[in-house]
Amino acid sequence: MNAPDSLEGKLREHLGVPAVLTAQEDLLPYAFDGTAALRQVPRAVVFARSAEQVATVLRLAGAAGVPVVTRGSGTGLSGGSVPVPGALVLCLVEMDRILEIDTRNLTLRAEAGVITQQIYDAADAAGLFYPPDPGSMKVSTIGGNVAENSGGLRGLKYGVTRDYVMGLEVVLADGSICWLGNKCVKDVAGYNLRDLFIGSEGTLGVITQVLLKLLPKPAARATLLATFAQMDAAAETVSAIIAAKIIPCTLEFLDQKTIRCVEDFAHVGLPTEAAALLLIETDGHPAAVADEISRIEALCRERGATTLKRAADAAEATRLATARRSAFSALARLRPTTILEDVTVPRSELAAMIRFVGETAARYRLEVATFGHFGDGNLHPTFLTDERDAGEMHRVEEALKDIFAQALALGGTITGEHGVGLAKRSFLRGQMGDASYALLKAVKRAIDPDGLLNPGKATE
Amino acid sequence: MNAPDSLEGKLREHLGVPAVLTAQEDLLPYAFDGTAALRQVPRAVVFARSAEQVATVLRLAGAAGVPVVTRGSGTGLSGGSVPVPGALVLCLVEMDRILEIDTRNLTLRAEAGVITQQIYDAADAAGLFYPPDPGSMKVSTIGGNVAENSGGLRGLKYGVTRDYVMGLEVVLADGSICWLGNKCVKDVAGYNLRDLFIGSEGTLGVITQVLLKLLPKPAARATLLATFAQMDAAAETVSAIIAAKIIPCTLEFLDQKTIRCVEDFAHVGLPTEAAALLLIETDGHPAAVADEISRIEALCRERGATTLKRAADAAEATRLATARRSAFSALARLRPTTILEDVTVPRSELAAMIRFVGETAARYRLEVATFGHFGDGNLHPTFLTDERDAGEMHRVEEALKDIFAQALALGGTITGEHGVGLAKRSFLRGQMGDASYALLKAVKRAIDPDGLLNPGKATE
Repeated sequence: MNAPDSLEGKLREHLGVPAVLTAQEDLLPYAFDGTAALRQVPRAVVFARSAEQVATVLRLAGAAGVPVVTRGSGTGLSGGSVPVPGALVLCLVEMDRILEIDTRNLTLRAEAGVITQQIYDAADAAGLFYPPDPGSMKVSTIGGNVAENSGGLRGLKYGVTRDYVMGLEVVLADGSICWLGNKCVKDVAGYNLRDLFIGSEGTLGVITQVLLKLLPKPAARATLLATFAQMDAAAETVSAIIAAKIIPCTLEFLDQKTIRCVEDFAHVGLPTEAAALLLIETDGHPAAVADEISRIEALCRERGATTLKRAADAAEATRLATARRSAFSALARLRPTTILEDVTVPRSELAAMIRFVGETAARYRLEVATFGHFGDGNLHPTFLTDERDAGEMHRVEEALKDIFAQALALGGTITGEHGVGLAKRSFLRGQMGDASYALLKAVKRAIDPDGLLNPGKATE
Repeated sequence: MNAPDSLEGKLREHLGVPAVLTAQEDLLPYAFDGTAALRQVPRAVVFARSAEQVATVLRLAGAAGVPVVTRGSGTGLSGGSVPVPGALVLCLVEMDRILEIDTRNLTLRAEAGVITQQIYDAADAAGLFYPPDPGSMKVSTIGGNVAENSGGLRGLKYGVTRDYVMGLEVVLADGSICWLGNKCVKDVAGYNLRDLFIGSEGTLGVITQVLLKLLPKPAARATLLATFAQMDAAAETVSAIIAAKIIPCTLEFLDQKTIRCVEDFAHVGLPTEAAALLLIETDGHPAAVADEISRIEALCRERGATTLKRAADAAEATRLATARRSAFSALARLRPTTILEDVTVPRSELAAMIRFVGETAARYRLEVATFGHFGDGNLHPTFLTDERDAGEMHRVEEALKDIFAQALALGGTITGEHGVGLAKRSFLRGQMGDASYALLKAVKRAIDPDGLLNPGKATE
C-alpha cells in the first residue's frame, strides 16, 4: 500500500480505494494495447467515474509531475494508450452511460467509456443510424474512437468519427472542464476547438463526454461481392464506380493472401483463387439502392469480374461484412507478430500503392497481406512476422520507411485511421513539414504547458 | 507618397507601386463590409498575388507592429473585415485562379480570392457539385467563406463550408507558410490544425489556397413551396418531415413581413396573406426525389398548408430559390439601416425562438422581419432601423441582448453562419464559458503571439 501522501494515496482518498490499482499483476493488462511489440507497465491505474474525478486525477498528477495516459478498452493500433515509463493510466471504461437520445434533433449524448457498438444499437433502436464502424467497434469505447478519430468501413459515403461529433466535454491538464460544441447544426462562434481535440490522441485533454450526430436509418441496403483475377481490374472498377457518380457506403478490398486466410478462418465460401475481392455496399432509398447495385454489378462485369455474388438477405450481408471484419484476426493466426499498417493515399493512387507494398515486401523478404478501404484510399498492409527474429524486425522497419515515403510522395498520409501514437511519431514531422509541425508543437505547449498528457506520443 | 523606409514604402518596393493604396479616396471602399453601422478607414490597402507576397506583407507589418486585417470581397455580416484603427488591409481578390479540378479524387484546388460562384460553376462543368451556397456566393470569395465558415441554404443535408475543405495553405503571422490537409479521405496524422483555421475569421493566419471536396452532381431535384396560416404549423411540418426520416437539402422559411417584401421586390407570385412560407428542396436519385417530394407534400397538407406549389421545371425552381435569396436585399429597401441577425438554436427550438423574437421586437417597439434556414435552426431576424435614431439603435442593442440570452438558454449560439467579428465579440465569452474561452485565448496567443492578425475581433 502506498503512503497516504503519495500520488496513489491521494487518488485513493479522493476516488476510493478500489478505483486505484497498483499491484504488479493488476497493472500488466494496462501495459499494452492492440499494437504489436509495444509494452510498458504503468506506475498505477486509476478508474474515474465523472469529469470531476478526471479533473481531480489530472490536478493531483500535475502537482506530482506524473504523466497521464488515458485509455478506454485499449484496442488502439498505434500504441496511443501504451504507457510511457512512470505514467499513470487513467481508464474511463466505468464512465459507460448513454445519457440522452434526442430524436427531434437527431443527437445522442454519452459518457466516454460507452462501447461504440452500444451507441450504434441505441441509435438503431430509435430508428436512427450512427455510421462510424471501426473494426474494433464491439470492444472499443466511443471516447477512444473520438480521441483517435477512428474510421471504419463506411467512410467513403459517411465519413469518419469526426463527422459525427457535435460536442465534447474535455478536461484540460489544469483540471478545468470545457464544453465544446452544442446541438446546433451550424455554429461559428469562436474557434473550432472541438475538432482540435478529436484525433489528438489524449495529448491535449481527456474527453469525458460526447454529443453525437445521428442520421435517419437508410431504408434499404444491398451488398455485392465481386472477385477479380488481377488487382488492377479491381482498382479500375472502383474508379469506374466513382466516375459513374455512385458513392457506395462501403468499398472494401482483400488481396489473395487475405482472402485465403479469411476463408480458412470464417468459412463463408470466398473464392480463394481470386487475386482481389471487392465487398461493396450501397444504402439509401430502396429504388436508388436497386438501381445503383445493378449499375455497380454491370461495371464489375465490364471490368472482367470473375465472380459476382449479391447477398440474398440481411443475414448474408452481415456474414460477408463480418468476414471482411475478421481479416485482421484471421491474419494474426499465421505468425506470432502481426504488424497492421495503415497508409492512405488519394483514391486514384491506391492501385499503385498496393503494387509498391507488394514489391517492397518481396525486396525485404517479408510476408505481407493487404486489405482495406479501397474507396477511401486507405490500405492495411499487414506484415506477418515474429518479433523474436531481430533481423526480420529490422527488415520490417526498413520496409515501412520505404512505404511511408512512397505514400507521402503520392500525396498520402502515414496513417489514415489508426493514429500516430508511439508507433509513428518519428514520421510525423516528415509528413507535416517544418512549419506545420512547429504549429502543432505551439498548440500542444499552449494547451498542455507541462507536457504531462500522453507525453512522448504523437507530438514528439 | 510615403517615405521609402515607411511600411508603405517597403510594401511598394516588394509588391510593386500599384499593389499599395494610400490615397483617402482609394481607402474608403475598404472601410466597411456588409455589416450595418461599422466603418473604419484603414491605414493602407495592399493587394497580394501569392502566398509568398502575403508572407512578405505579414513580416513587414509584424516588424512595424502594424495590425493586418485580411479581406476578400467584403460581404461579411459581422464586421470581420472592417479595419481596426491604424490597420493595414490585406486584400486577396487578385489571387483568383482555380488551380486544379481532380475528377478522380473529386477535389478542386483554388486560390483564396476566387468567387464562390465560380467554384460552383467549375465543378458543375465537370459534372460535379460544390454544395455550400452562402447568400453572398455571387460576390464573396472562397477564402472569405472558409475564414468565416459560411453556411447557406443547403446546410441541412450537405453541411457548411467546413465540411468541404480538405486542405488549406495558410500564412502565419511570422510569415511561415503551412499546408494543412491533403487529398486523402482519411488522415489522422497530427492535430487537426486545418479546422482550427476554418472559421477563425482571419485572427490566426491568412488563408491563401484551399483544397475543396466535391460531390457527384445529384441526378434530380424537386422544389416545393408551401404556405401556412400560422408559423407553428410550418414548424410542426418541419418536425414531421425530419421524423419521417427525410433530410431535404433545403428547408427555408420566410415570415409574413419577409414574404411581402420579397414579393414586392421580386414579383414571383408569393401568397402575401400567408403567415409563413416554406421553400423545400430535395435532391438525389430521381426515384428517391419523386417519392420524397410526394411524402413532403402530403405532410404539408396534413399540417394544414394553405397553398402548395411544386416548381414545374429547373427555371421555376431557380426563380423561387432566387426569391428566397433576395430576402435581405428586399428588406434592406424598407428603412436606412438593416441589421441582419443570425442566432441559431437546436432545430426543435426554432418555433419557440421565432415567437420570442417577435415578442421582443414588440416589447422594444422595433420593426423585425424573420427568415432563415428552418432545417438548421438558423434564423435571421432582420431589424429595420435608422442608425441616425440613437434611441432606436439603443433599443435594438437591448433587444439583441435579450435574443442572444434566449438563444443560449435554448442551447443555441449567437451566430450560426455570419461570425463573431466586431459585432458580437462582447457576447462570445458568455456563450463559451470561462474555461473554453480561456482555451481560445491560449490558442490565439500561441499562434499569433503579437496579436496583430485581425485584432479586436472574435478573440477579445
